Amino acid sequence: MSPAHSHAQPANAPLRRPVPQALLTALKIRFGVNCSTALVLREQHGRDESALAAPPPDAVVFAESTADVADAVRLASEHGVPVIPFGVGSSLEGHLLAVQGGISIDLSRMNQVLSVNAEDLTVTVQAGMTRKQVNEAVKDTGLFFPIDPGADATLGGMCATRASGTNAVRYGTMRENVLALEVVTANGEVIRTGTRARKSSAGYDLTRLMVGSEGTLGVITEVTIKLYPLPEAISAAVCSFPSIEAAMRTTIQTIQMGVPIARVELIDAHTVRMVNRHSKLTLREEPMLLMEFHGSPSSVKEQAQTVQEIATDLGGNAFEWATTPEERTRLWTARHNAYFAAIQSKPGCRAISTDTCVPISRLADCLLDSVAEADASGIPYFLVGHVGDGNFHFGYLIDPDIPQEREIAEQLNQQLVARALSMQGTCSGEHGVGLHKMDFLITEAGAGAIAMMRAIKHALDPQNIMNPGKIFKF
Amino acid sequence: MSPAHSHAQPANAPLRRPVPQALLTALKIRFGVNCSTALVLREQHGRDESALAAPPPDAVVFAESTADVADAVRLASEHGVPVIPFGVGSSLEGHLLAVQGGISIDLSRMNQVLSVNAEDLTVTVQAGMTRKQVNEAVKDTGLFFPIDPGADATLGGMCATRASGTNAVRYGTMRENVLALEVVTANGEVIRTGTRARKSSAGYDLTRLMVGSEGTLGVITEVTIKLYPLPEAISAAVCSFPSIEAAMRTTIQTIQMGVPIARVELIDAHTVRMVNRHSKLTLREEPMLLMEFHGSPSSVKEQAQTVQEIATDLGGNAFEWATTPEERTRLWTARHNAYFAAIQSKPGCRAISTDTCVPISRLADCLLDSVAEADASGIPYFLVGHVGDGNFHFGYLIDPDIPQEREIAEQLNQQLVARALSMQGTCSGEHGVGLHKMDFLITEAGAGAIAMMRAIKHALDPQNIMNPGKIFKF
Repeated sequence: MSPAHSHAQPANAPLRRPVPQALLTALKIRFGVNCSTALVLREQHGRDESALAAPPPDAVVFAESTADVADAVRLASEHGVPVIPFGVGSSLEGHLLAVQGGISIDLSRMNQVLSVNAEDLTVTVQAGMTRKQVNEAVKDTGLFFPIDPGADATLGGMCATRASGTNAVRYGTMRENVLALEVVTANGEVIRTGTRARKSSAGYDLTRLMVGSEGTLGVITEVTIKLYPLPEAISAAVCSFPSIEAAMRTTIQTIQMGVPIARVELIDAHTVRMVNRHSKLTLREEPMLLMEFHGSPSSVKEQAQTVQEIATDLGGNAFEWATTPEERTRLWTARHNAYFAAIQSKPGCRAISTDTCVPISRLADCLLDSVAEADASGIPYFLVGHVGDGNFHFGYLIDPDIPQEREIAEQLNQQLVARALSMQGTCSGEHGVGLHKMDFLITEAGAGAIAMMRAIKHALDPQNIMNPGKIFKF
Repeated sequence: MSPAHSHAQPANAPLRRPVPQALLTALKIRFGVNCSTALVLREQHGRDESALAAPPPDAVVFAESTADVADAVRLASEHGVPVIPFGVGSSLEGHLLAVQGGISIDLSRMNQVLSVNAEDLTVTVQAGMTRKQVNEAVKDTGLFFPIDPGADATLGGMCATRASGTNAVRYGTMRENVLALEVVTANGEVIRTGTRARKSSAGYDLTRLMVGSEGTLGVITEVTIKLYPLPEAISAAVCSFPSIEAAMRTTIQTIQMGVPIARVELIDAHTVRMVNRHSKLTLREEPMLLMEFHGSPSSVKEQAQTVQEIATDLGGNAFEWATTPEERTRLWTARHNAYFAAIQSKPGCRAISTDTCVPISRLADCLLDSVAEADASGIPYFLVGHVGDGNFHFGYLIDPDIPQEREIAEQLNQQLVARALSMQGTCSGEHGVGLHKMDFLITEAGAGAIAMMRAIKHALDPQNIMNPGKIFKF
């Protein structure tokens, strides 16, 4: 990567704020070897999975406790210096980039289970724990945490971006599955946003305000989440369709009939081809739905039969079953690897990922028009969708050294977002706003709602030190 | 009611704010006959279902559109005068009382459906529509809106208190079921808080911030909610237990096994007796679970069988079925009438209602200790619970003219809340804070979280005109 490219600042970005030596000294005294200014560590903490880039943070603090986070934030706050929470770096929208400089607080060492409450179907963990670590930790209880955004992200990061993924059609998103948080506020104070009660009408919903706030209102340090009983039976199926529209009608009818389908993913013909090549599969290279059913053995059977009937009626064929765990894992791994399959199809490329979500009645129209535009552009892409929720992702595969490719991809994304908004949808279903969708958010939310968000931001972070330059430009 | 009682101000209440004649004149000019200062209308809008009282608002505006609400708020804002949104008056926590005077904005005429989107399972309605009106309006689509707090409340009111009720164990609360709102802000501006997409990561969750804000951050004027397919089959069952504990263990095991039970309500022996007398039923006068199962015919059968086996194992007996709609309606009507059955058991009484919610693993302990305390106090009461969520209500039946009875009831409530908080529960599961739980909220949330809520309130309503004196004292 050329330096000019890798450090390209977004337009109108404010200057980086100075980080006084006094702060670095204070951090060194407080954190010793857990505070580093080594370039390699700073660079590692200054990027994510997006195609965006900025100069790295000025220092990295490895937090091992809530007290560590609170002290780091308090010290930064005393010097008016930005703090950027860091989990595993799997953000797709530039959330981790130090666009105004500052201190990256790495929470990945805060990965302990604090309490498992199996009878209540809840678990409280430190925010640096990843979703796979959580599931490993609770596996003996017969319970699991279903939210699966693909990446093995930390719970703190998943909260911050209001993540969801393939299981959301049945189990909801982080919005529905977080009961309470512990948060370090902009002045280094520690608060709790809720209790372990499954519902509450006691005051403003600070939990939901923090979920999706992308580190701009506080640093999440503990997370209490809902767990679910491991389904007695799981069955997965693949069905190919003559058109995207037929796959969409199958999805709509399935949802409308109240089938509690656990996953329903669209992969377009083009992407199936990449996946076949990458994962050595022989899936039919047609628009495909990849589905999963959870429940009792008889309920799973009934659900699958219903969907098979709907699909067959709409021209779906080759309804294939994956009944063993190995077969299911193979299929879902292929789905999760669609991103890597695509990246490998064009060596050296980066993916510019879209994230629109529309009411499902509009999904076929939205997809078909956007596919036509992408095909016409000549930019290669992949297309996958959590279609039960109306959310889908194009990944436009660009050569980062060819600015024109990036421009075309951004243009396609803009057209797609405009289309989604005109259909009463959103510019981001699950990745967040970050650096990449700030202008779209203004269009989507409108001036009044943005003013309200900014008023909240200003009230809770008057110095604008909490992950500044994300969600809002300044 | 003696005037001294009926106008008792809460301790430390600030003085009523003056309502300038200029504002009343401006409202009269703008709203004509839809603005009234008649005492009978003001009194009707100055009370709710709680045992609390305050002098009535200074005027009532009957809004017929969002523009009406916006103009009323703007005029009030220009004079620094409070506004209090009013739906049907079914609040239980004093939300509607004009403790600082001001203008009651009655939204009950805003009861139109704005758009039904059956394919997307959403409907958008004006905020003055009641939940029964919504269900009537969508009944031809094969869909329904499940949230049922008992009262036929307006959707705006249900949003404002983050209401839930008997179906929440399966379908969630208003928190999970509102997609987007239109809100009139404190300066009379109209904003939208979301889109019709089923999920979004685009900016702060203003929808969830408004849901549960009790009119203190804005007036909700439109509501977009999720609908659900009417279950193909519904079956209800009643089961009596030798003890509350056995009923609780049955509930916990049912939830833990992942049975998607739609309703599971506890009625204690004592309350069953009142219900029998009031609704002319012959239910066994023992702790009782009233349950409902939704799904396909075979799934409903399977769910019910599983629960029956669990219940029998734990000493439950007389598992009785209500298979016809008439029988089911009779049972649920009896449950909904528990409140009225109790009220009628002590002529002239009012109920002081509790609303704690605890993790279900602690529910039996919480209930048993609280029942013992209530029995020892000599104050009659009823006890019902949405036990699948850990939420239950004592209604202490007091004579409003005997201050000592109120004191004893408040003391019982205090002990109950302290117990719930010590069990990681909440002071309010679904009724809201209102005037009645402000001190409890401080204990529950802690100083830091309260400071954050107050900062948000101040940022969005700097004049403190939006339903002032609720949630926070001033």
